[in-house]
Amino acid sequence: MHDPNSFGCRAFAAVLQRIGDKWSLLIVSVLAEGPRRFSELRREIPSISQRMLTLTLRGLERDGLVSRTVTPSIPPRVDYELTELGRSLRKPVCALAEWAMANIDAIHDAQARFDRAGEKV
Amino acid sequence: MHDPNSFGCRAFAAVLQRIGDKWSLLIVSVLAEGPRRFSELRREIPSISQRMLTLTLRGLERDGLVSRTVTPSIPPRVDYELTELGRSLRKPVCALAEWAMANIDAIHDAQARFDRAGEKV
Repeated sequence: MHDPNSFGCRAFAAVLQRIGDKWSLLIVSVLAEGPRRFSELRREIPSISQRMLTLTLRGLERDGLVSRTVTPSIPPRVDYELTELGRSLRKPVCALAEWAMANIDAIHDAQARFDRAGEKV
Repeated sequence: MHDPNSFGCRAFAAVLQRIGDKWSLLIVSVLAEGPRRFSELRREIPSISQRMLTLTLRGLERDGLVSRTVTPSIPPRVDYELTELGRSLRKPVCALAEWAMANIDAIHDAQARFDRAGEKV
């Protein structure tokens, strides 16, 4: 798959172009637990701005990974949930999240060592 | 893990801040096959610029995921390979790559439908 002429590498690059950003991966990981309203997503991902959440959800909707349901109440209620295609992404994204949780300390240690070594040069 | 106050979500966000970009994920996916010289990585990821490859490799080295070996030949030879920590990331990254390869067509179809629907509005 890593031959630049093979289908695999190009497909991986094309998909990463879309989902290979932390916001898409984080939103998919939250929606993996069930549907969420816009305000709930903002609360569960406190570091995302309203604009970036809007843009990322629109991108995920365009990719067919997330569906958007508007309930015409006052105020209107908007729910987001994974489509069938989006649900198939749960497993690899959760595997990445689990790796992250298991290895965050090792990465922080490595960064501190790298930065100390840089200071000595 | 999606409670903003829980350790898990913050760890996932912190790690994605680093590895959650397409270049890091692509480089890890190539190095998953074995050590590569700088020039080989450029050839296998034709869409990356020399500068972005340098920056991303340096970030991965700082994270303790990639090691860099300089052989003092003429010209000097520089090899990159996954560390033990980096090798532990192979499995989740390859799972994501496999998902990407299996679903790229479905995503392109969804994008075309979304864009056609937008034209009608």
